[in-house]
Amino acid sequence: MTDDARFGLARHVTLPGPLRLDGGVLLSPVDIAYETYGTLNADASNAVLICHALTGDHHVASPHPVTGKPGWWTRMVGEGKPVDPARHFIVCSNVIGSCMGSSGPATVNPATGQPWGMSFPVLTIRDMVRAQAMLLDHLGIDTLQAVVGGSMGGMQALSWPATFPERVRAAVIIASTARHTAQNIAFHEVGRQAVMADPKWRGGDYYEEGDAPSAGLAVARMAAHITYMSEAGLTEKFGRRLQKREQKSFGFDADFQIESYLRYQGLSFVDRFDANSYLYITRAMDYFDLAEEHGGHLANAFRATKARFCLVSFDTDWLYPTPESRAIVHALNAAGAPVSFVELHSPFGHDAFLLDAPEMNRVVDGFLRAGA
Amino acid sequence: MTDDARFGLARHVTLPGPLRLDGGVLLSPVDIAYETYGTLNADASNAVLICHALTGDHHVASPHPVTGKPGWWTRMVGEGKPVDPARHFIVCSNVIGSCMGSSGPATVNPATGQPWGMSFPVLTIRDMVRAQAMLLDHLGIDTLQAVVGGSMGGMQALSWPATFPERVRAAVIIASTARHTAQNIAFHEVGRQAVMADPKWRGGDYYEEGDAPSAGLAVARMAAHITYMSEAGLTEKFGRRLQKREQKSFGFDADFQIESYLRYQGLSFVDRFDANSYLYITRAMDYFDLAEEHGGHLANAFRATKARFCLVSFDTDWLYPTPESRAIVHALNAAGAPVSFVELHSPFGHDAFLLDAPEMNRVVDGFLRAGA
Repeated sequence: MTDDARFGLARHVTLPGPLRLDGGVLLSPVDIAYETYGTLNADASNAVLICHALTGDHHVASPHPVTGKPGWWTRMVGEGKPVDPARHFIVCSNVIGSCMGSSGPATVNPATGQPWGMSFPVLTIRDMVRAQAMLLDHLGIDTLQAVVGGSMGGMQALSWPATFPERVRAAVIIASTARHTAQNIAFHEVGRQAVMADPKWRGGDYYEEGDAPSAGLAVARMAAHITYMSEAGLTEKFGRRLQKREQKSFGFDADFQIESYLRYQGLSFVDRFDANSYLYITRAMDYFDLAEEHGGHLANAFRATKARFCLVSFDTDWLYPTPESRAIVHALNAAGAPVSFVELHSPFGHDAFLLDAPEMNRVVDGFLRAGA
Repeated sequence: MTDDARFGLARHVTLPGPLRLDGGVLLSPVDIAYETYGTLNADASNAVLICHALTGDHHVASPHPVTGKPGWWTRMVGEGKPVDPARHFIVCSNVIGSCMGSSGPATVNPATGQPWGMSFPVLTIRDMVRAQAMLLDHLGIDTLQAVVGGSMGGMQALSWPATFPERVRAAVIIASTARHTAQNIAFHEVGRQAVMADPKWRGGDYYEEGDAPSAGLAVARMAAHITYMSEAGLTEKFGRRLQKREQKSFGFDADFQIESYLRYQGLSFVDRFDANSYLYITRAMDYFDLAEEHGGHLANAFRATKARFCLVSFDTDWLYPTPESRAIVHALNAAGAPVSFVELHSPFGHDAFLLDAPEMNRVVDGFLRAGA
């Protein structure tokens, strides 16, 4: 357990479980790495859960232990921000299946004393949410003032009131979707095949070799990264500008800036992420279809909850484009749930939710204060 | 040389060259595999050149020798089609850099007696066009009645009147672009990195081993294939439908139909295509920027030609979306060149130009007849 008042509390807990997963497996124990910021008030009514995206972690507002970079959502979480430790007790946990301290393929299976690898059970978004609920039990939090997330974090934020209708008073879902489309699945499948095509993957048993399938994982990251940015954003940022040289090389080095940028994205990613975790989490996202979990009707997912909802999409996000958010809004309307929805302009595509977006902050701030 | 009257003439010619390439290298000799259909008329005025796409070949209207599948553009080329052997002398040649018989990395470098591999010179679209012009010289064709192509074939069809302004009377450019954008380059770079990350690639020297980097090439093809289809088309064709099973497997087999479809696309591709050729041709496409070749102004590319132009785009093509065609039309207008342009509706994205598209056929047929 690390304790740094300035950066919040980075903690780790081993819960006995068992956690019954959607695939039928009982997971026990359940390790959860998490951070908290601020103080839980006397009636435990000011807790806000932040949910992270595919390759994110619990270091939402404190430096990443490997890269040293600032927390991934300091624009949303921190002093004077919409989610503020002066007012909220902020919890962010690493999702199970990930590789930053929570139970996942890279952690040790206590039954064998070896890393789980591909014997780790396949998870769903709802399983991640259930593990978060177990953490909240442990922290003495019955009801969340709000659950907030973008991208895969938005899937969790959406799954929360559907899975625990009594435990959430508000949900903020940003740049997200209620189900993965064929195109979403296709891009993830390319990434998985890239990892599994790497001979170093070895069926997932690469931990003892200390020689991970980095080449395959880098390709997976590169492909995914394209989907996080808009065509217009790429054109604005890189266009056809050449890297370093005046002229094309007539070779296969990175001539264009976009090429060296993508290669860097791939290479830097493999230093901080586990290839098997990438397989498991993309699988959970592809399995996500909240309507399917509720008899094929998305509105059914929200009939039991009293939560208020806030949805934000970005006009250049082609990974989870605005119609995906609108479909959620329609279902919430059909279920009679209070919902506010705004599509914001940004040139940055899906990644916009992680970048400076003052309008997004105003929307979320107003929404959270209205319910306080 | 194969001779099959029913399917046209499949030929191969070794031209002495040298062909001076944009990269400065002199290529000599120049092998070109090609097919012809129909008969060249007395004044050699009825020749139509068909240009193929990235992974295409010269078997435009006759069965593929490896797969046995029908020619790739029998919907456009054949009896009663817009390009008709009863009226036209039709030529389709395998681009240099490819792997179906024309000079490329898999062919033997006569200087060494070994396959070129990565010592083959890097090419441009204009180099492909210059090789086609050498073939036309060989065939006694001075001027084309028309040059017709889709996708990368459209780039060649656009480059033709820019490179040989006197030798083309009409150009048909379908689902194409005058330059590769950052996003286009990004997807190709993912594919190249996937190939080069495969240990079997061996710096391109895999021919003697007989053990090609198929896993990497399959991943490259999968990623590219997503860009050929629209999100709506994928949803209509596959949606979230499961493969074979009633239930999700909670494993990493191909649960979804889109997954097994993509895997099949990757696996079947490697049987018919050379990994190094994939690197070279994607590089040529990424280098393509017709404006850059003409002082940064696309209109300049067309000031010397008297050709008529016909452009067709498809509304769901997000690889080369309609604005790319429109930019070409604007440049042609600025250059005073006659141009007709239509955006057609199709749910099938970029691939639409290869599929049944009666409107496209009517447009091309009318355009070609108007100039005859």
